[in-house]
Amino acid sequence: MTGGAVAARDISHIVDTAHAMADAAGAAILPHFRQRALDVENKDGTGFDPVTAADRAAEAAMRQVLAERRPDDAILGEEEAATPGTSGLTWVIDPIDGTRGFVSGTPTWGVLVALSDAAGVRFGLIDQPYVGERFWGGFGSARWRGPRDAGALGTRATGSLSEATLMTTFPEVGSADERAAFERVAGGVRLVRYGLDCYAYALLALGQIDLVIEAGLNPYDIQAPIGVIEAAGGVVTDWDGAPAHRGGRALAAANPTLHAAALERLRGV
Amino acid sequence: MTGGAVAARDISHIVDTAHAMADAAGAAILPHFRQRALDVENKDGTGFDPVTAADRAAEAAMRQVLAERRPDDAILGEEEAATPGTSGLTWVIDPIDGTRGFVSGTPTWGVLVALSDAAGVRFGLIDQPYVGERFWGGFGSARWRGPRDAGALGTRATGSLSEATLMTTFPEVGSADERAAFERVAGGVRLVRYGLDCYAYALLALGQIDLVIEAGLNPYDIQAPIGVIEAAGGVVTDWDGAPAHRGGRALAAANPTLHAAALERLRGV
Repeated sequence: MTGGAVAARDISHIVDTAHAMADAAGAAILPHFRQRALDVENKDGTGFDPVTAADRAAEAAMRQVLAERRPDDAILGEEEAATPGTSGLTWVIDPIDGTRGFVSGTPTWGVLVALSDAAGVRFGLIDQPYVGERFWGGFGSARWRGPRDAGALGTRATGSLSEATLMTTFPEVGSADERAAFERVAGGVRLVRYGLDCYAYALLALGQIDLVIEAGLNPYDIQAPIGVIEAAGGVVTDWDGAPAHRGGRALAAANPTLHAAALERLRGV
Repeated sequence: MTGGAVAARDISHIVDTAHAMADAAGAAILPHFRQRALDVENKDGTGFDPVTAADRAAEAAMRQVLAERRPDDAILGEEEAATPGTSGLTWVIDPIDGTRGFVSGTPTWGVLVALSDAAGVRFGLIDQPYVGERFWGGFGSARWRGPRDAGALGTRATGSLSEATLMTTFPEVGSADERAAFERVAGGVRLVRYGLDCYAYALLALGQIDLVIEAGLNPYDIQAPIGVIEAAGGVVTDWDGAPAHRGGRALAAANPTLHAAALERLRGV
């Protein structure tokens, strides 16, 4: 990652702010988790896209942290209109990534916090407050802490698709073409698992799985995973090998060799 | 649930023993969870069926608890040969349900403990030791405890498939016919999620989801879920409406109305 908008003296303030945002989001969300009468609204009027009171309360809580600590930075969130800034830095936040998992009671949704500049993602954080797990990376560091332990993140060295574990959230992945491309990769790996939303990216950074392939992403879905995974030694691009931070299709891989092998299959060459 | 082999004075001893077994299994498993060099063996010599040192250590630990506390009961486990008994009671145990999830680092595998007699399942327990969650039911009680809270289990009253959340572990479910039957149900529900193994049954007992449909199960995969879900107010049968405790195909539903609706679609009538 490159880019000059972050002065060295700002790094600890940025990292502390990201943790404070995740703390505030978790505190706002947990009282709503697994409550029977979730206020599930239908965001687009057609499909099933739950947005809960928790989602909105968490984004408001994170924006409040930023208003107090870093009022000059811009904010791009899932729930509210984008807030412009003057610092050249943008916080890209998703209060609950994996709302379908959230309303099903699973413990694998997450709070996503990323910081980007004109060059791309500089820092990312994935938090699962129910389990008490957090994964973060950027500025030369990649760390996690869980309910029982803590340590450094690091992707693994899996050298071929035939040894790899692949995750995605939905078996349908996206369009028919996108599903077919996914299945070209899936057909060559050792194990495919579904359903974990952002938690899959955390497992990749933790060295537990090797590939995550998704489509139809928003910038706030993928920027925090990019920050965490790149800091942990992995590679994240779109399905053409170009930067993925604007959303759309994402391929995350544990290392460059595996990334190249998966990219070849996604392209169908 | 009926059956007379359990004397009233035995119930607390049985329940305490089940908790002690889960405690012992969790202690045996956690040192192996997310270790890089998992000792994954290939059980059947052909497919990918990971059996880890954790799996075997946990079954041995549970058997040791039974040898000390209840030597007259029979034991049916995943890893070792069945142990006969003289009490008319059988402990049916799966040290790690969801080994593929386990080797991928997910926190949704579980330790399964069930107690059965000739009439069927009398008690079940599902434990997720990394998160620190436990769900248990039988003998007129259904409870859970988690990292932040504890309480009574209870399934929800969802009255139609169109309002229901359905889970299964693999999108392929089983044979082509089994997949087609599953998809007849899946096509009529509000939300389908994948990948959670036994944790899906716990979420059903917790009132967070409405249906779990799986095929190709062993008795030790389904008996603990049966105990927990029936105690929480749900219904578990095979895909013909017959008892499911011998394994094979299972349909778990939050209530009898939903069970009947799903069964009709599984049968294709």
